[in-house]
Amino acid sequence: MLYVIGLGLSDEKDITVKGLEAVKKSERVYLESYTSILMIPKERLASCDMEEFYGREVIVATRETVELESDDILRDAETKDISFLVVGDPLGATTHSDLLLRASDLGVPTTVIHNASILTALGSTGLQMYSFGQTLSLPFYTETWAPSSWYDRLEENLRVGMHTLILVDIKVREQSEENMARGRLIYEPPRFMSPYTAFQQFLRTEAERHPPVSEQESTDGTPPPETTPTLCHPDRTLALSLSRIGTPTQRIIAGTISELASLPEEEFGPPLHSVVIVGKRVHPLEVEFAGRWAVGGENGNWWKVAKEVYGVERESR
Amino acid sequence: MLYVIGLGLSDEKDITVKGLEAVKKSERVYLESYTSILMIPKERLASCDMEEFYGREVIVATRETVELESDDILRDAETKDISFLVVGDPLGATTHSDLLLRASDLGVPTTVIHNASILTALGSTGLQMYSFGQTLSLPFYTETWAPSSWYDRLEENLRVGMHTLILVDIKVREQSEENMARGRLIYEPPRFMSPYTAFQQFLRTEAERHPPVSEQESTDGTPPPETTPTLCHPDRTLALSLSRIGTPTQRIIAGTISELASLPEEEFGPPLHSVVIVGKRVHPLEVEFAGRWAVGGENGNWWKVAKEVYGVERESR
Repeated sequence: MLYVIGLGLSDEKDITVKGLEAVKKSERVYLESYTSILMIPKERLASCDMEEFYGREVIVATRETVELESDDILRDAETKDISFLVVGDPLGATTHSDLLLRASDLGVPTTVIHNASILTALGSTGLQMYSFGQTLSLPFYTETWAPSSWYDRLEENLRVGMHTLILVDIKVREQSEENMARGRLIYEPPRFMSPYTAFQQFLRTEAERHPPVSEQESTDGTPPPETTPTLCHPDRTLALSLSRIGTPTQRIIAGTISELASLPEEEFGPPLHSVVIVGKRVHPLEVEFAGRWAVGGENGNWWKVAKEVYGVERESR
Repeated sequence: MLYVIGLGLSDEKDITVKGLEAVKKSERVYLESYTSILMIPKERLASCDMEEFYGREVIVATRETVELESDDILRDAETKDISFLVVGDPLGATTHSDLLLRASDLGVPTTVIHNASILTALGSTGLQMYSFGQTLSLPFYTETWAPSSWYDRLEENLRVGMHTLILVDIKVREQSEENMARGRLIYEPPRFMSPYTAFQQFLRTEAERHPPVSEQESTDGTPPPETTPTLCHPDRTLALSLSRIGTPTQRIIAGTISELASLPEEEFGPPLHSVVIVGKRVHPLEVEFAGRWAVGGENGNWWKVAKEVYGVERESR
């Protein structure tokens, strides 16, 4: 039996009782170490803490192992129990469809043991999970490369009033161009995008897509070309930063995009982070709940924009 | 400390190790028994099995208890540990925002322990969770009441190519009109919508919104009024039924909506169920993975429609 087991969001004790029982009886235990929603520092997962708690040696599986040597992972799984551990929900971010399909081809029975993922844990914001549209991924921009197709997806969600979860980039096991060119398997230190960078990139793309009117004026005095009005003006759009969700140091900050973009980077603390853009079909209780973390507290722009732009009146409590 | 603890999807062993530790040290343990994603038969949850496993008496909390007597639940929680158990993820379906806000007002510290919910577990279908739009709820139609606003939401998702999870109706603790009129607290047996009913209701609303052309012809020979073409023709739209997801008897069936609507009700087995409508922005691997459960197997309409309507060519494996 191949058990594909979710580890949840924070530490080794977020495994389910059922998952732990499967691990303890497994012949081999693999830990998938490369998907982009890794919420636990690898050091800790791969540390003795984890192996001690699970009572099993844990083999760290890189992307190469899983994609190229999946038959090694599946060896003897027709008759023996093998566990494959994945941070979050095992079919959450990367579906690991390939491994499950390969097991199916080989006649290996499989059991998936689900767990929490960022997609459910973002309920901590007080926003209604059912009102989220598609989930976006925001890559690190470079000086010459700022792919903005995520912005089109965001507009699709905003047009129908949906909230948007934006997963921000994580670079693990990246090689420098030089090391890659020379074929050296030396990896750069991991990089985790902060909400600061995410909101700066947002402002950059927003300004490119919807330049301020003054910049649109041509030098010969002709009127600027018509552009569709922006759906997410930074001063008039509510957003949240989500840091270390599901862990004891979880931190949520709420405000307009402009307010959040002007916070110093260290305000958000260590990774992992993600970002939420609030859609227009928001409920007053959602505004109330998340407003407890508003920049500027009761006098923050959160409440002003909620009223003037989102049409939400505060309920008296 | 108020612990709000997710129980996951299947049975008492889906609680996390951390959640179990919190339960075992709690002074009182409540089980929230009314949200619409209850995936465990209440009888089992409330049974001695559960109390024995958790080592604690479990107090079943109805909607009335949670909404009207929340201060009872929170009594002494400033100094003692209280656990509030919720099936799935605790902030998944119903956010329980009110209870958490009330705790916050009373100065009671809270800890949320997340778990799997249908929103993550639907990764079992092989469909990419990030490509789901907003989640819909489909109510039981009656002879005189067939609210179809869910259909507008479905179209919003389909227009941008997103998949749609449809949560189907569950009636628990419903009173008959007579008992309600007489003020008798007698409840009807629980009712769970089957995929059969869900697809029949779909066909009814689809036919109302987009009547077949022949029915549009007026008797005096004038041409039918122009209607926008349907985005989800039953013969040309792929869908899935999801039954008992996350449990050992999990069953997924894939096909066109017409194919799924023509299956006998008993084919889907016992509750709980939900339904997925596949969006156009589908990836070949998603089609491949879910196609293993296609009505008619390799010769089913699944593959034909995937190719002709969704433009997905099968990869050779």
